[in-house]
Amino acid sequence: MSNAKLKIIVDAMSGDNAPGEIVKGALSAAQEFGVDIVLVGQEDALQSCLRENGAVNAPYVSIQNATEIIDMHDDPSTATRRKGDSSMSVALRMLRDGEGDAAVSAGNTGALLTGATLIVKRIRGIRRAAFAPVLPNGGAGTLLIDGGASVECTPEYLLQFAFMGSFYAKQVMGCPQPRVGLLNNGSEESKGTELCRTSYALLRQAGDAGRINFIGNVEGNDVFSGAVDVVVTDGFTGNILLKTAEGMGAFFLQQIRRLLASQSTGASESGAALKQQLSGLRRAVDANEVGGTAFLGIRRPVIKAHGGADARAFRSSVKQAITFVNADVIQEIEENISYMRLHDPAADQTGE
Amino acid sequence: MSNAKLKIIVDAMSGDNAPGEIVKGALSAAQEFGVDIVLVGQEDALQSCLRENGAVNAPYVSIQNATEIIDMHDDPSTATRRKGDSSMSVALRMLRDGEGDAAVSAGNTGALLTGATLIVKRIRGIRRAAFAPVLPNGGAGTLLIDGGASVECTPEYLLQFAFMGSFYAKQVMGCPQPRVGLLNNGSEESKGTELCRTSYALLRQAGDAGRINFIGNVEGNDVFSGAVDVVVTDGFTGNILLKTAEGMGAFFLQQIRRLLASQSTGASESGAALKQQLSGLRRAVDANEVGGTAFLGIRRPVIKAHGGADARAFRSSVKQAITFVNADVIQEIEENISYMRLHDPAADQTGE
Repeated sequence: MSNAKLKIIVDAMSGDNAPGEIVKGALSAAQEFGVDIVLVGQEDALQSCLRENGAVNAPYVSIQNATEIIDMHDDPSTATRRKGDSSMSVALRMLRDGEGDAAVSAGNTGALLTGATLIVKRIRGIRRAAFAPVLPNGGAGTLLIDGGASVECTPEYLLQFAFMGSFYAKQVMGCPQPRVGLLNNGSEESKGTELCRTSYALLRQAGDAGRINFIGNVEGNDVFSGAVDVVVTDGFTGNILLKTAEGMGAFFLQQIRRLLASQSTGASESGAALKQQLSGLRRAVDANEVGGTAFLGIRRPVIKAHGGADARAFRSSVKQAITFVNADVIQEIEENISYMRLHDPAADQTGE
Repeated sequence: MSNAKLKIIVDAMSGDNAPGEIVKGALSAAQEFGVDIVLVGQEDALQSCLRENGAVNAPYVSIQNATEIIDMHDDPSTATRRKGDSSMSVALRMLRDGEGDAAVSAGNTGALLTGATLIVKRIRGIRRAAFAPVLPNGGAGTLLIDGGASVECTPEYLLQFAFMGSFYAKQVMGCPQPRVGLLNNGSEESKGTELCRTSYALLRQAGDAGRINFIGNVEGNDVFSGAVDVVVTDGFTGNILLKTAEGMGAFFLQQIRRLLASQSTGASESGAALKQQLSGLRRAVDANEVGGTAFLGIRRPVIKAHGGADARAFRSSVKQAITFVNADVIQEIEENISYMRLHDPAADQTGE
């Protein structure tokens, strides 16, 4: 495997179950996928985790000491600057300096995004990085971009999200000609806000030029039906969509559990089997649980694992980081950047 | 019952199952709730429906002839004007002229909203009417306002939605002190778009003055958790939320059906029972199925029934219209209109 030389940088101190589950998940990924792991965090705590897992002298794992921890109470916009020796900040600096191929963190999403932008930096020409979760659709999933990184967007940001999402879906999700849709409140071209209408025209141009496979406007329900592979929207709307899907999924599971409980007397064994399968369904529905979420537009691969990730979920996030590294997404973005810009001199001044 | 004298105007020709299921549902509501019904539509077709239901000479039902039908292909913004003798247009004119207490239609949502605004008109001082569906939360439901009527909104519109939603939740949904939340991408006051931040300040003022019970920002997942009774947002975001919830619900049911099918050999009887119960769950999840959706801000009660409503669902919509009429929502909006306006002279000029 070409993975043999890959080194994944793991922020081992962030997330609800850090460092225990993070270390356990990272170790299992290292063994299973044949990669090296650098655990970043408080050395004593990490040594103790390695001991618990019988991996003190494992050749594929090393520790990089970092004394501080960024938690959910830290202000996302200043956290990586103010806590320069946090596990997250150190991990991102290592990624910037080429001391690993990708970084994975289960920490504060906003802090990780700000840190990635400030430390690792955006790809030249990319205006905003995007948070790109995969939502369930019964198949390979639907990529939502942006899922919440940039609240206020311009049409150019959305054009860039469309290209980046399309490249990611093709190379990481294995979707040969990703169908790209613009999230709107109806399918007609004239629908939506000013942002929607202007962005529609840009995406249509890119589609007509054969650079993306733009299928037009899509609605909230299309996300889960398999009718579209990449859904483009601003980060505000994307966050509402993501949280709504999570909330609806949780509500649904609760109702089904209640339903199963109420009839458990008649069919307790099959009820128990069903309950177990429902847990699997919950995982399928909670996009963040399965693998992690990529930040797109950053110069090197950064993956956000779910804050509540256990060892299994964190292992999946490391696996996703490996797939991301092996794909040529970032290179493809760099090579196509001229098609992703509006070439407005005023906008150039405000770029990186 | 004080309902004895109420007269509900029914657009009998709109909807996927018109006129058969509409007439059947309206008749069953008339008998069950003791109200009079006017069926608006093509006289021959409606007479034939009455014959089928053995209700030709029923004292509680009358027919108002209307020759045209507005369908899903008509342009919503011009439909009621261009088809002046459509069942929808005639029903709305009857409502305006006091020939009934409420109108119920399963027709084109946009056409019904435009027609209600142009024919029945908005309450004096109300800038925009809102579409206010009820979403499932395990209890009395969460009112979403606006669910898609006004795509581009000002803070004043959102302030008005908050008041109208609060009055409706209190009087129609039986929620004594409705918790009103502003939909946002996080709970902090500083979150969201410019529209969110300005609206937050207005809602906070109204809350501090004791006029609404404002609980601050809420997120997409809070809608289904029972943590909030009225969720205020612009119509674009509201539409995305509504469609996402529908899509996620449909996806979930499909997955569960698959799961049940795969284990049906072992527990087929209990599986069959479960399948039946799942249909009930689907109804609970599809907000539009249970009752109808109120248009708030219009001078008289207009209820939108689901386009796919069968007799049972249409009957529920008529029931909801009756509850709406018996509540003092419209009067309460009129009495509080001075607290719902920004008193900006420029805005006054663009008002109704």
